[in-house]
Amino acid sequence: MKTQNKRKIINDPVYGFINIPSDIIFDLLEHPFFQRLRRIKQLGLTHFVYPGALHTRFQHAIGSLHLMTKALDVLIAKGNNISHEEYEAVCIAILLHDIGHAPFSHALEHSIVKDISHEEISLAIMQKLNSNFSGKLDLALEIFQNNYHRKFLHQLVSGQLDMDRLDYLRRDSFFSGVSEGVVGSERIIKMLNVIDDELVVEAKGIYSVEKFLIARRLMYWQVYLHKTVLSAESMLIKTLKRAKELAKNNVELFATPSLHFFLYNEINNSNFYDSPEPGQKSILDLFTSLDDDDIMVSIKEWSEHSDKVLSLLSKSILNRKLFRIEIQEERFRKNKIDKIKASASELYKINLKKIDYLVFSDSISNYAYTLEDSQINILNKDGSLIELSEASDILNIKILSKKAKKHFLIYPKDIV
Amino acid sequence: MKTQNKRKIINDPVYGFINIPSDIIFDLLEHPFFQRLRRIKQLGLTHFVYPGALHTRFQHAIGSLHLMTKALDVLIAKGNNISHEEYEAVCIAILLHDIGHAPFSHALEHSIVKDISHEEISLAIMQKLNSNFSGKLDLALEIFQNNYHRKFLHQLVSGQLDMDRLDYLRRDSFFSGVSEGVVGSERIIKMLNVIDDELVVEAKGIYSVEKFLIARRLMYWQVYLHKTVLSAESMLIKTLKRAKELAKNNVELFATPSLHFFLYNEINNSNFYDSPEPGQKSILDLFTSLDDDDIMVSIKEWSEHSDKVLSLLSKSILNRKLFRIEIQEERFRKNKIDKIKASASELYKINLKKIDYLVFSDSISNYAYTLEDSQINILNKDGSLIELSEASDILNIKILSKKAKKHFLIYPKDIV
Amino acid sequence: MKTQNKRKIINDPVYGFINIPSDIIFDLLEHPFFQRLRRIKQLGLTHFVYPGALHTRFQHAIGSLHLMTKALDVLIAKGNNISHEEYEAVCIAILLHDIGHAPFSHALEHSIVKDISHEEISLAIMQKLNSNFSGKLDLALEIFQNNYHRKFLHQLVSGQLDMDRLDYLRRDSFFSGVSEGVVGSERIIKMLNVIDDELVVEAKGIYSVEKFLIARRLMYWQVYLHKTVLSAESMLIKTLKRAKELAKNNVELFATPSLHFFLYNEINNSNFYDSPEPGQKSILDLFTSLDDDDIMVSIKEWSEHSDKVLSLLSKSILNRKLFRIEIQEERFRKNKIDKIKASASELYKINLKKIDYLVFSDSISNYAYTLEDSQINILNKDGSLIELSEASDILNIKILSKKAKKHFLIYPKDIV
Amino acid sequence: MKTQNKRKIINDPVYGFINIPSDIIFDLLEHPFFQRLRRIKQLGLTHFVYPGALHTRFQHAIGSLHLMTKALDVLIAKGNNISHEEYEAVCIAILLHDIGHAPFSHALEHSIVKDISHEEISLAIMQKLNSNFSGKLDLALEIFQNNYHRKFLHQLVSGQLDMDRLDYLRRDSFFSGVSEGVVGSERIIKMLNVIDDELVVEAKGIYSVEKFLIARRLMYWQVYLHKTVLSAESMLIKTLKRAKELAKNNVELFATPSLHFFLYNEINNSNFYDSPEPGQKSILDLFTSLDDDDIMVSIKEWSEHSDKVLSLLSKSILNRKLFRIEIQEERFRKNKIDKIKASASELYKINLKKIDYLVFSDSISNYAYTLEDSQINILNKDGSLIELSEASDILNIKILSKKAKKHFLIYPKDIV
Repeated sequence: MKTQNKRKIINDPVYGFINIPSDIIFDLLEHPFFQRLRRIKQLGLTHFVYPGALHTRFQHAIGSLHLMTKALDVLIAKGNNISHEEYEAVCIAILLHDIGHAPFSHALEHSIVKDISHEEISLAIMQKLNSNFSGKLDLALEIFQNNYHRKFLHQLVSGQLDMDRLDYLRRDSFFSGVSEGVVGSERIIKMLNVIDDELVVEAKGIYSVEKFLIARRLMYWQVYLHKTVLSAESMLIKTLKRAKELAKNNVELFATPSLHFFLYNEINNSNFYDSPEPGQKSILDLFTSLDDDDIMVSIKEWSEHSDKVLSLLSKSILNRKLFRIEIQEERFRKNKIDKIKASASELYKINLKKIDYLVFSDSISNYAYTLEDSQINILNKDGSLIELSEASDILNIKILSKKAKKHFLIYPKDIV
Repeated sequence: MKTQNKRKIINDPVYGFINIPSDIIFDLLEHPFFQRLRRIKQLGLTHFVYPGALHTRFQHAIGSLHLMTKALDVLIAKGNNISHEEYEAVCIAILLHDIGHAPFSHALEHSIVKDISHEEISLAIMQKLNSNFSGKLDLALEIFQNNYHRKFLHQLVSGQLDMDRLDYLRRDSFFSGVSEGVVGSERIIKMLNVIDDELVVEAKGIYSVEKFLIARRLMYWQVYLHKTVLSAESMLIKTLKRAKELAKNNVELFATPSLHFFLYNEINNSNFYDSPEPGQKSILDLFTSLDDDDIMVSIKEWSEHSDKVLSLLSKSILNRKLFRIEIQEERFRKNKIDKIKASASELYKINLKKIDYLVFSDSISNYAYTLEDSQINILNKDGSLIELSEASDILNIKILSKKAKKHFLIYPKDIV
Repeated sequence: MKTQNKRKIINDPVYGFINIPSDIIFDLLEHPFFQRLRRIKQLGLTHFVYPGALHTRFQHAIGSLHLMTKALDVLIAKGNNISHEEYEAVCIAILLHDIGHAPFSHALEHSIVKDISHEEISLAIMQKLNSNFSGKLDLALEIFQNNYHRKFLHQLVSGQLDMDRLDYLRRDSFFSGVSEGVVGSERIIKMLNVIDDELVVEAKGIYSVEKFLIARRLMYWQVYLHKTVLSAESMLIKTLKRAKELAKNNVELFATPSLHFFLYNEINNSNFYDSPEPGQKSILDLFTSLDDDDIMVSIKEWSEHSDKVLSLLSKSILNRKLFRIEIQEERFRKNKIDKIKASASELYKINLKKIDYLVFSDSISNYAYTLEDSQINILNKDGSLIELSEASDILNIKILSKKAKKHFLIYPKDIV
Repeated sequence: MKTQNKRKIINDPVYGFINIPSDIIFDLLEHPFFQRLRRIKQLGLTHFVYPGALHTRFQHAIGSLHLMTKALDVLIAKGNNISHEEYEAVCIAILLHDIGHAPFSHALEHSIVKDISHEEISLAIMQKLNSNFSGKLDLALEIFQNNYHRKFLHQLVSGQLDMDRLDYLRRDSFFSGVSEGVVGSERIIKMLNVIDDELVVEAKGIYSVEKFLIARRLMYWQVYLHKTVLSAESMLIKTLKRAKELAKNNVELFATPSLHFFLYNEINNSNFYDSPEPGQKSILDLFTSLDDDDIMVSIKEWSEHSDKVLSLLSKSILNRKLFRIEIQEERFRKNKIDKIKASASELYKINLKKIDYLVFSDSISNYAYTLEDSQINILNKDGSLIELSEASDILNIKILSKKAKKHFLIYPKDIV
């Protein structure tokens, strides 16, 4: 099983000591692909609002692994048969579920690396690791892609109550200091069971599940979609788009070599997987050398670039002089936006054509529980199953599953 | 203001250090009426299920006081004018709001001291203290009775978001170890404000309020109405009723002197306030000498009493051999109950007339948010007010406010 | 192993969920002898100073059991061979290690039940349980009495770093709110190992052990020997001694039947184990029906007794009007004590002969680490062992092991 | 005082809500010099061992500010006169006390920016801010430099029990997950007082102070000087030294512009403060644009540099393949080191002259309490003062104040 020297314990401020369950998990942890996650913050620029929210995807992946071992142990104790291979495979799947995330994932997907989801990249990286590890990740890949017949294993990795969510809600609330987001993950896990290879929650866990959904919603509005965070991340998208446009026009820009490639080349779904020229790095290799630091140091340099749009945006992010953001239910009137654009154009002596980088409107939406998505099934004492939306009289699940769409308008604060 | 020697700090596992804000509060804390609360557990027999839930009404009263000072400081910092007298009075009101609770309050109200609510007794005790303190509690009494024109002060003592609830939910979840019941009381308090002398919550606090209501509901089903607790407390009621009946029939029973009086006399709303005979104690004095210990030692002795019903019930409570409890939405069929009664009668050789003490059905109900009660008003940024049930799309407030009624059936475990 | 219906989880505010490891442990938990511990507070009257310190010996015993399972799992994972029988036996031994404690243990040992240590009574109770459980506690008893050849098992129950201490320090600091007493029990346990059947601590755990010793010392002075607690418990001793003296003189006193026996009979080492008359209860049975409540309700009644000494002491305890306490390194001068006695005698019109109950001096001592006691051995990386007092340069172990003796003088506050 | 729009609350995972006490503090927080601290981790590469230890100097500065306001409020409540100006000035002093830290402070001081302490740079930055803020930092500067007659104000910023230490110990233990390092800062602060303008601790705080010193020592050995951290930081120093040497020899190296300047120029105490050429940035400006990201992205690029030494070191840091470290009390024998060097030279085909970058020995030392430094004075109840080393019988303060020196030897793991 586990050789002595790989028996490692990791100190986690959230859960205390975390044990690494097996050798291959240890080896995956040590791999540069996984170590890269140390340099990618889980919540991007959220630390501009919650200074403690500096935790990384590395920590989250290990935390999810920890909850996975707890969940598996509970399921086994309840008499569910889980083989050693399945145990290890689902641990690998959860460990690597987010390995394809770019730095500032959301922002980059809207500016630099287009039309490729982080799930696809996670899959590509897992496949590459699988060939490095001579096929030992086969079952993990099956589970990850939901091709394995025991669906509950996939559901533990990706489902309404997966270990990913249970960890990130707890971890994000811990590090942001928004203590209300705390989720009773321990109790939910104790209530899990498997019926016909599907994950279910025992009836007496229903209050915990309700609270989980409410906590998640609270975290959305209070943290993930906090208006100041939204402003910062929108500004980051605009900054990267501007840089990309300048690059297209062959304007010289400082960029770390990794970032330089993605600025000066058009990468998308169709060429991402192209084989590299001999002696060259593959795009995946280049991608996996990108991290938060590349973005941040480039922005720091851009804050003194001669392009006014780029430098204004970059300096504002660097020094956290974030733009004003207004949020409302309805779309903003064109009239209002145009007026602000005119003022901005005048104030900054910036051409109206380029003013869209500084004054812009968009929308966001969020939903806490999706019906189309996998459901949460509640197991009654008599053995019958019932869907949560029927089991819970208190939660208006229909509304939870309805996208809540909000419009926002962003512009520099010195425009009155 | 505050003399040096009364500047006292209390260590509280929940909040850390608690400061006593003024001399009269300190003097009230020292009064035997208040010290009695040290001997009355907040959650009665709940520690049979959650062994840590031994905290007392004394701790809760001081915790509520602590939150009150925090809330008042927030309101003052927001520019609300609160005089020194009002500050002190509302602190006194919250400190004493539960001072009239009997030991095992709910159980005693159904067995020994009838038709008198603990609120009425709290009022009587506060009035008695007011005369001892030469009228210094006048304003506190006005606020407590909601006769003072600034309604928000009463609402802080007793309302949807009063300091009583904010403390007990947090404290009960802390000591029971049900961490999910934890409420972001700190954040809710930061969001309070006053409009037209009514308490309101600023709009961005709505998610915290939603979570508060869900946490409260969770605590109801997981702790306050936990089936084993329900069984224990129902058995306690039956035990005391049996003791009372035996007393009525002049059967000799051990009882501490305080309890003895209430067993051998019929006390109710109409004679509770009667003036005592000269040289005798008033009923209020006798009442305030009763505490949890009187009940528990008496039950311990009764466990060896010759009355089979009394001893069986008492021994079962003493050694935590609690009766089986079944819970369901519908009323239990008479047929089923009668069968169980017959078995019990045969098993214990107890007359069918008396078997109701051992086999019985009843119902409980609960609601987390009452519309008839004071409402929670949300203050929008534009200054408008909106009721929570309209402001929250997610919570089905109508359902929260609907009494959830459940029926239960209790009988000894050795009846199959 | 473990049947489904005895698979029980206990909610503990300190550690979260605690699993009961086996059926016999579950059955012992359910036994009236063990349930009695629910009615005995771990820290006696300490809640007069730290209102949260209401936790019971029941909680502590279960917490110690929990740490024991953690420690055993660590030792097994390090390759130490521990049989299933040994595992269960040492769990039983720790669970029952304190089962012989009287209510307000220290106070009662100085007043009512003389010359019998709680260890002896624990042993007697364990032996009685062993006969009830048809010898299944044989090995547990061997370990408890340190007659088993694998010494480390006894050391886990009773030694410098036993699970008893690790739990009570953590639990007492948790419930008292003295957060500084918190001990890294999880880390110390991870550092345990066994060499030649003796418990050792791996070298890198030395800082945790140092901190454990310092935390323990802090808890002594800040909690266990807090001067107000000392005053309360000394007053309790005097109260019980006075009651006993009155009983000897055939003065009628209220007492619960269990307490009554011990007040009106002289119980000591020589007659404690006497066989009872036929149809009578044994002294052990009487002893195990005594709990905190017997003492407290009796004191409540005594607060109105005609004996001035008894009522003054009792009323002062009941209402927490504790006597003044002075503490100093040197013995108090007889001169000073006599003066105070004279004032007290005059003030209360109490005969000088009896004034010793109200004005008295005594001493306490404490040591955090005893050399005579079992030692803490540190295991170096090279396999050599070294005693802690040699391994730690920072701690003056000699001083830690020296009894720190302090004298105190107690008298009513209204004597100036 | 405080205008409405600057009334800001910061969420801190350690303390909860933190209030910004005044406008100028708010403006300083917003300044780019202070915002830079968001990009400088408090504990450098410690997160390689404790993944949660990503907290920044920004968070620490705000946490220290928070404790400072608590301490000042306690001192004022005890009757010490502290003017509004003093209050604000000492808050500014603590807020800015670490503003001069370079990224990976210790490592950079040994490689790139020589002979200039971070205290000197902090002072230079504060002076620059003072001129920006038209002299409003005059008093803060006086206090910071210990030129103000009320010494206790300086001692709160820098002394045995300053707010800096109280915050960083608590914060570092919180984020590293080493819960044993937790210090009862709240209690120590409650025990502070001022005698003759010097900070003292009231006698009953002595156990908390002892525990603080022990916790600090534990943090030193368990976190600050953890052997793996030591290895990582030593490797960082070697990497930067190698880069600097290559730069000196005009080898081309990737570096962010800010870092480039410091690599290709010799900066030290004598030219740091030189006035810049017209139109050029001052060295201080260049320094304040350096942060952790500059170092980390450069190392990432260097991991593919043609210089074998540079790339080996850089790649090892990047992917956390840290070198082996041996630690012992005595100096390592030259013989042993030379053998390892020879193996390394052969293995990596690296010239023996350059092998010192990969195989090297050095020493570290640590002391928890320095006598020469300001002392901790304990205030007895009788008003007398006594130094801690005399007041504490348990701690061997002489040993605490003795530098504990350890030698270490570092080399790549593939050398057996």
